Amino acid sequence: MAKKKSLIKAPPEPRQDPLLVPGFSAAGIYGGIKKSRRRDLALIVSDPPARVAGLFTENHVKAAPVLISRARVQSGPCKAVLVNSGNANACTGDPGLKDAIGLCQRTAEGLGVDEHDVLVASTGGIGKRLPVQRIRTALPRLLRKVRPGGILDAAEAIRTTDRFRKALWSRSEIGGVPVTLCGIAKGAGMIRPHMATMLAFFLTDLKAPTTALRRLLKEGAERSFNRISVDGDMSTNDTVLLLANGRAKNRSASLGSAEYEAFASLLFPMMSELAAMIVRDGEGATKAVDIRIRGARSEGDAKVLAYHLANSPLVKTSFYGGDPNWGRLMAALGCAGPSVHPQKIDIFYDKVCLVRNGVGQGEKKTDQAVKVLRKSAFTVTIDLHVGTGSARVLTSDLTHDYVTLNASYPS
Amino acid sequence: MAKKKSLIKAPPEPRQDPLLVPGFSAAGIYGGIKKSRRRDLALIVSDPPARVAGLFTENHVKAAPVLISRARVQSGPCKAVLVNSGNANACTGDPGLKDAIGLCQRTAEGLGVDEHDVLVASTGGIGKRLPVQRIRTALPRLLRKVRPGGILDAAEAIRTTDRFRKALWSRSEIGGVPVTLCGIAKGAGMIRPHMATMLAFFLTDLKAPTTALRRLLKEGAERSFNRISVDGDMSTNDTVLLLANGRAKNRSASLGSAEYEAFASLLFPMMSELAAMIVRDGEGATKAVDIRIRGARSEGDAKVLAYHLANSPLVKTSFYGGDPNWGRLMAALGCAGPSVHPQKIDIFYDKVCLVRNGVGQGEKKTDQAVKVLRKSAFTVTIDLHVGTGSARVLTSDLTHDYVTLNASYPS
Repeated sequence: MAKKKSLIKAPPEPRQDPLLVPGFSAAGIYGGIKKSRRRDLALIVSDPPARVAGLFTENHVKAAPVLISRARVQSGPCKAVLVNSGNANACTGDPGLKDAIGLCQRTAEGLGVDEHDVLVASTGGIGKRLPVQRIRTALPRLLRKVRPGGILDAAEAIRTTDRFRKALWSRSEIGGVPVTLCGIAKGAGMIRPHMATMLAFFLTDLKAPTTALRRLLKEGAERSFNRISVDGDMSTNDTVLLLANGRAKNRSASLGSAEYEAFASLLFPMMSELAAMIVRDGEGATKAVDIRIRGARSEGDAKVLAYHLANSPLVKTSFYGGDPNWGRLMAALGCAGPSVHPQKIDIFYDKVCLVRNGVGQGEKKTDQAVKVLRKSAFTVTIDLHVGTGSARVLTSDLTHDYVTLNASYPS
Repeated sequence: MAKKKSLIKAPPEPRQDPLLVPGFSAAGIYGGIKKSRRRDLALIVSDPPARVAGLFTENHVKAAPVLISRARVQSGPCKAVLVNSGNANACTGDPGLKDAIGLCQRTAEGLGVDEHDVLVASTGGIGKRLPVQRIRTALPRLLRKVRPGGILDAAEAIRTTDRFRKALWSRSEIGGVPVTLCGIAKGAGMIRPHMATMLAFFLTDLKAPTTALRRLLKEGAERSFNRISVDGDMSTNDTVLLLANGRAKNRSASLGSAEYEAFASLLFPMMSELAAMIVRDGEGATKAVDIRIRGARSEGDAKVLAYHLANSPLVKTSFYGGDPNWGRLMAALGCAGPSVHPQKIDIFYDKVCLVRNGVGQGEKKTDQAVKVLRKSAFTVTIDLHVGTGSARVLTSDLTHDYVTLNASYPS
């Protein structure tokens, strides 16, 4: 089969350019890390310092910046976030920790703040020391470039194999005052449940206690970033931060308040949309497939089955090939773990019912399914008819370009 | 990256041609199933009827022939095994069961034996009815072709996407009499722990009770077919049979006897070698990689980690690309489930120590590892230094050809 071109285009960017969030400024420059000499160093600054919530990789192997930022979000406010792409600073031992801490110190000095108020995140190849000297040299230039309209530059600078930058902006009245939210993310490879090689930063002028921010971030991630899969591996560097600097002066969005709910309805859709953008931009992806399991014995069973399909190379290559190969879905369902009754299973590609009670529905339906599979986004729904558990996972196809990208990614 | 040619060549076939096992005869012909018109129908016949042990897929979705043969191996002797490739007869409901039973009946009539003494196995695409009429028409021709030297033809007829047929032959003195063993197998895709889209048939003139045959098969599979992975999915059709017709007239190889041990030392290496051939012939594979985990907390932990690496697309594409990307190994180890201490991990490519205590050992070692990765077979050893658990899994790389084969496989 010849290599297929991706049907997925970069989505239109938000009309609001520059993306302004009161109190936030940012910059993104080339800081000497990437061989390509593309932007690889970003800084986000909040004035006043923001309350912050963070979610980090659950991988036992955690990169130096994750160890540092995870500790720092526990205690203090956040004045700034320093981010680099092109090098994960993972598996670099104590020297890697010292590198990251030193860069935070330099940044704090430049901003005139406490070094513990600077968070740090990295993404890129594992196992190499950061080019600290080059980054230090670049830092003064980065600090000079920081400006309210610099968020898109930062979104650009956190990309690795992402084909397009990912930034969303939204504004709403909350308790009578306008509240602004901006989210930027990078994804591409090593994407799977419980975070991925994924960085995402949400910046808002909302006033809210840290406990509320933590809950918001966790709940939102469970519905978004924890429901996507590109290739089933989890990164050492995943970091999602929610920074809220309180400039909007709304009545504080404490847990359970109307303000909390209003902000959740701003944040959760943005998180879901950024997560979907990450899947659509999965390494080499030509298609985004929404896998829905229903009628499982439990939600837990449904999740396991959905992820198993989302990570099965045979299932993912069938999406790529445009082949409604429901036999592979059946085989994958049968070996995922949870008990299934093949003779009860219905399978739909969008609305086309290809399998009813475990048996194929013939060539006409197959032809209809082939048309569904030609689309750049479609839904595969599986009804197990043994209970009421359901789950969704968004995944991409497995393509020639995935292999090309990952067989040549520099180590 | 350009597509890479496989470094793997078909292994030399056994010199003994035809493969003779006293009392066994076989045939392999084109029976009207494959569009390619290649051989797709095989028959193995034992005279006298053989004692038989069988292992079958643990997938909840089991093909019709699996359901039939699994029941029949419980009770009776086995006179013959009818095998087809090109169609799995899976997810075909009751009609599929009737198709398979009817073909067994026809075969039994042709051989003048009880239909329950005929086993059946199928491999190929899921969800389509067998072309029963064409197979019935072919059956008399198949029966006429059955001959002592026909085992290689049978090995040919059970292939699907296999690039080469897999047949091994061995003979040894057991208790003073010569005993012969022949094994044939097919593999290629959907290969993973606890059986795979894999058929394997072991034919011997050993005299042994069924209990001994069952134990031998189970023990051997645990070390061989259950220790390989190509793409992490398990098939609906896996079947491994051990047929022993007792012609050798040895003292019966009952459990724990010297004869039992002697036969095990004939059978187990053959099972391991056939399993290795299946990995080397994994769909699109260019390399076979022996993944060894040691120093884990338990054997269970070691197995989970070994399989996680063996199934990680990022790890497998790094093998394909010849890239000693140990960061991906670290990330995969960290997210497989078992707790690991990154700072204790050593990683070797063959004998090259690329990571010591979780930290990379520099460019010189990387250059040496690159040379290892150019080979068609090598070992990746990971020492976790937290216990004494160990496990091995043999896997293949993930390649452009894997995607090509599976994106265009007819549904």
